[in-house]
Amino acid sequence: MHRYRSHTCGELRATNEGETARLSGWVHRVRDHGGLLFIDLRDHYGMTQCVVDPDSPAFKLAETVRAEWCLRIDGEVKPRSAETKNENLATGDIEVFIRDIEVLGSSKELPLPIFGEPEYPEDIRLKYRFLDLRRETLHNNLVKRTKIINSMRQRMNTIGFNEFQTPILTASSPEGARDFLVPSRIHPGKFYALPQAPQQFKQLLMMSGFDRYFQIAPCFRDEDPRADRLPGEFYQLDVEMSFVTQEDVLQTMEPVIRGVFEEFAEGKAVTKEFPRIAYADAIRKYGSDKPDLRNPIEMQAVTEHFAGSGFKVFARMIESDPKVEVWAIPAPKGGSRAFCDRMNSWAQSEGQPGMGYIFFRDEEGATVGAGPVAKNIGTERTEAMRIQLGLEQGDAVFFAAGDPKKFADFAGKARTRVGEELNLINEDAFELCWIVDFPMFEWDEEEKKVDFCHNPFSMPEGGLEGLNTKDPLELNAYQYDVVCNGFEIGSGAIRNHSPEVMKKAFEIAGYEVETLEEKFGGMLRAFEYGAPPHGGMAAGVDRIIMLLVGAKNLREVTLFPMNQQAQDLLMGAPSDVFPAQLRDLHIRLNLPEA
Amino acid sequence: MHRYRSHTCGELRATNEGETARLSGWVHRVRDHGGLLFIDLRDHYGMTQCVVDPDSPAFKLAETVRAEWCLRIDGEVKPRSAETKNENLATGDIEVFIRDIEVLGSSKELPLPIFGEPEYPEDIRLKYRFLDLRRETLHNNLVKRTKIINSMRQRMNTIGFNEFQTPILTASSPEGARDFLVPSRIHPGKFYALPQAPQQFKQLLMMSGFDRYFQIAPCFRDEDPRADRLPGEFYQLDVEMSFVTQEDVLQTMEPVIRGVFEEFAEGKAVTKEFPRIAYADAIRKYGSDKPDLRNPIEMQAVTEHFAGSGFKVFARMIESDPKVEVWAIPAPKGGSRAFCDRMNSWAQSEGQPGMGYIFFRDEEGATVGAGPVAKNIGTERTEAMRIQLGLEQGDAVFFAAGDPKKFADFAGKARTRVGEELNLINEDAFELCWIVDFPMFEWDEEEKKVDFCHNPFSMPEGGLEGLNTKDPLELNAYQYDVVCNGFEIGSGAIRNHSPEVMKKAFEIAGYEVETLEEKFGGMLRAFEYGAPPHGGMAAGVDRIIMLLVGAKNLREVTLFPMNQQAQDLLMGAPSDVFPAQLRDLHIRLNLPEA
Repeated sequence: MHRYRSHTCGELRATNEGETARLSGWVHRVRDHGGLLFIDLRDHYGMTQCVVDPDSPAFKLAETVRAEWCLRIDGEVKPRSAETKNENLATGDIEVFIRDIEVLGSSKELPLPIFGEPEYPEDIRLKYRFLDLRRETLHNNLVKRTKIINSMRQRMNTIGFNEFQTPILTASSPEGARDFLVPSRIHPGKFYALPQAPQQFKQLLMMSGFDRYFQIAPCFRDEDPRADRLPGEFYQLDVEMSFVTQEDVLQTMEPVIRGVFEEFAEGKAVTKEFPRIAYADAIRKYGSDKPDLRNPIEMQAVTEHFAGSGFKVFARMIESDPKVEVWAIPAPKGGSRAFCDRMNSWAQSEGQPGMGYIFFRDEEGATVGAGPVAKNIGTERTEAMRIQLGLEQGDAVFFAAGDPKKFADFAGKARTRVGEELNLINEDAFELCWIVDFPMFEWDEEEKKVDFCHNPFSMPEGGLEGLNTKDPLELNAYQYDVVCNGFEIGSGAIRNHSPEVMKKAFEIAGYEVETLEEKFGGMLRAFEYGAPPHGGMAAGVDRIIMLLVGAKNLREVTLFPMNQQAQDLLMGAPSDVFPAQLRDLHIRLNLPEA
Repeated sequence: MHRYRSHTCGELRATNEGETARLSGWVHRVRDHGGLLFIDLRDHYGMTQCVVDPDSPAFKLAETVRAEWCLRIDGEVKPRSAETKNENLATGDIEVFIRDIEVLGSSKELPLPIFGEPEYPEDIRLKYRFLDLRRETLHNNLVKRTKIINSMRQRMNTIGFNEFQTPILTASSPEGARDFLVPSRIHPGKFYALPQAPQQFKQLLMMSGFDRYFQIAPCFRDEDPRADRLPGEFYQLDVEMSFVTQEDVLQTMEPVIRGVFEEFAEGKAVTKEFPRIAYADAIRKYGSDKPDLRNPIEMQAVTEHFAGSGFKVFARMIESDPKVEVWAIPAPKGGSRAFCDRMNSWAQSEGQPGMGYIFFRDEEGATVGAGPVAKNIGTERTEAMRIQLGLEQGDAVFFAAGDPKKFADFAGKARTRVGEELNLINEDAFELCWIVDFPMFEWDEEEKKVDFCHNPFSMPEGGLEGLNTKDPLELNAYQYDVVCNGFEIGSGAIRNHSPEVMKKAFEIAGYEVETLEEKFGGMLRAFEYGAPPHGGMAAGVDRIIMLLVGAKNLREVTLFPMNQQAQDLLMGAPSDVFPAQLRDLHIRLNLPEA
């Protein structure tokens, strides 16, 4: 018999009756049933109920074992009686009568219970991550993570992509966040950087003629803690293709993304054909370029109904500035004064002066708009608006007014809030879409200048001619995001592969040619030697996994995450180093004064 | 028609005759055949011969294109005449008559020719790596690399292993080489380290109950340049299993390794069943724990034939020290004085006083040993030795004498040299073996102390009792290497999962308990909470690929390698950084004085 096991803890069935089995695993729980000891033995594959009676030669030792000890046991497989069978357990038809126990690893008192998974302070969970990971939910999440990444890989391989590992010790990368730096020992005063993304390398791969690249790529950003991002490292499904248009990338990647979602959706619906929504339309309809399409609400402009109306606040705004619009946020079934007032209070808590609304109720068989706005604009305009928005008795509508650039974000939040409050969001769906036609540039209010909106390496629509002739702020780029349930899960572009167009684009964004050459010289040089048109995207692996397992926090889908202070409490990183190490690296500490 | 291509450059066949094809790719070569221009267009998938005649509307533009320009061409597929068909080219039955050309990316003068792959200085190749990678050999090597890694992954998945990504920003790791450090911005004066290997994490995964882990894992060592290792980063196939013995690991991994070799051996023979060779035997037979078994020579001890013999140099050594042995290195078909003298000169060039030999020749129908050694020890001893070694007329044998610990390495080199000089090495084979029974400890002559021989985390044979009762230098460990054609391609061990045994092992190697806890606290702590027995190995991915593609240098199987001075000449790493970045990281430069 094998030294440690004849079967896993998830393997024994009624057909094994009478066999002698050897199992190894962890004591999930010990129960004392009047002399009989029940030991639930757990391993990666499952759980088996083991029993020791006082006649067993192992009884004395069995009395000493505690939760999470690691044991090897030998015993006889016996069927359970009908009333003690456990249908929730794959091995629930049998139990093993223990004859022999070997303690493979005993345990000190547990700092963190495994059985039952009670909530526990995160710092303890992270410090004892090896125990935390024994908990069923987290353990399963991580196994699912593995399977999801596998599925991504296989799908990419199947459609002819090659996975390449790009360098991790490299030069400062252009993604715009802060780099992690690595001092060079051999070159005093010089530093490597960890890649924020393999952007330049994947484009260089296209220059090298590899045609279709992907990678489950580790990326590194030294950012301040944010709730939706782990400090330090994260993974992306990184993709690049040569000789393609935007349409090719979308048609190539949509089946991969849909396939992964369908494979792991566990019965939830997955969008069959991802709608393509222009950035400008997404903002107008959803107030966001990451719309949650599980929320059926679509906003509409209703400016005309307020222009010259008796609702003077809006009417005057519209008159004074042609940029001003009024947007309606329909709220199906939200037609009560109580709900409308609650939304109004919420708007105030968000720093708004309030939020105008109309709600529609029955008055003697007729559907009538109620509330101060309706009163001010009158029946005719109210009715016209109701018809435009397709609202009925019992529905409501909220309004946001001003320069859409300034209020769109708030309107989007209001849309989300209404959807949540009215339970309009379909929790059993993954609603996916592409956002396309992103602007190439945006106005940076802080720096008072035009800057890249998305990615400096994207091809502007119209190429050089577009850059030379159009208002930069009116120019779109071949850029696209893929969005699921309100989260951006991927982003990509057709790249600008012409050095001339690239230089012009950077000039518009106010960068010196020297900056471009200094920061992106490796890639820019490559463009001068027969660069192919190319494009691609990167999808957020951790985010996709989080959506698929239904976790609320990235730490629930990451093996050994750092805490929000960027510390690894298990391994004790970051840590002090020896002065000799610093000397070797030609650096000295420069500590803040105490 | 697609914007860039209807077919790849490797796709058109005689059956496409008459079709209009659109191809995109690089100009591999332009030939002017008396007015007709031949353009070989190349992409990732292959090459197509394109033709422009002076009547084509594209002729004028075609005259301007140069090697490595990136083009789109449209044209008609025509069959080649019988005498111009090219059987070496998948598309060799056809050519495309160009009607239209679009220059997608022109090229400056090439710093590095692609066509014909002439040898070129390495620094140019690395600086223009994106051109170097277009060269057929390197391009194919990298594609094969991708396929080999894929094959490893699929094989591991198939046998029930889960791939997990372990952290890259972590604490200093215990592999013994120098760490790359990453200063923490959030924690002044503290540093992350890049993992030299995921050793602790993979063991922690076993503590977490994951049972079977693997990873194509990036590893980082800040080592001084060595010919057989790239500076910076490398990849290993990292594996760990719970509840296993050494035999389990060997039986699990041997089919994976053999399978990968067989899949990519391209007709070369691959060892069917890897021999298991004890470390001590490997040293005695091959003078190395990384024996090249393609070399049929096995050394043998022939001490008894020299003890008390007339060859006084050896006889006296044997008499004066019981540790002294004489090893014979048989040289089949090496039986000429010229060859023996050449080997003797080689030995002197290696710093040895020379190398004794006997060669066997025909003297009047009898096989007789010749040379000074034979003369001194006489016919009887010479004949006894000949019979022991199974040598014949025309063969030779060389001798190394002394303390085997001191000369084994040289004897191994001599064995290799003899094998190479006599063409005994079978170049058409991958000869694989396991080396087992490594010593747990070795004598560190420099530090004058006992130290770990291989890996401090290995389980000594006999566990705690072994450590307590045996001479440390006599104690073996459950450690193993896998060796191919003279290269160690993998290494592993059954781990020491008992904190008690671990502390004792470190004590013997002269480490304080505090050092152990400080350096390996994360893992050691885990051992105290129900640690399972476990073991695994790590195989060198880059090395295996190098063997399989037959490359002589790791840079020939690596996408964007650094040069031997640890510089990335393409991206310009390492590089200067801004003073503000250093301030953010709480460090200052400490440069050597000019």
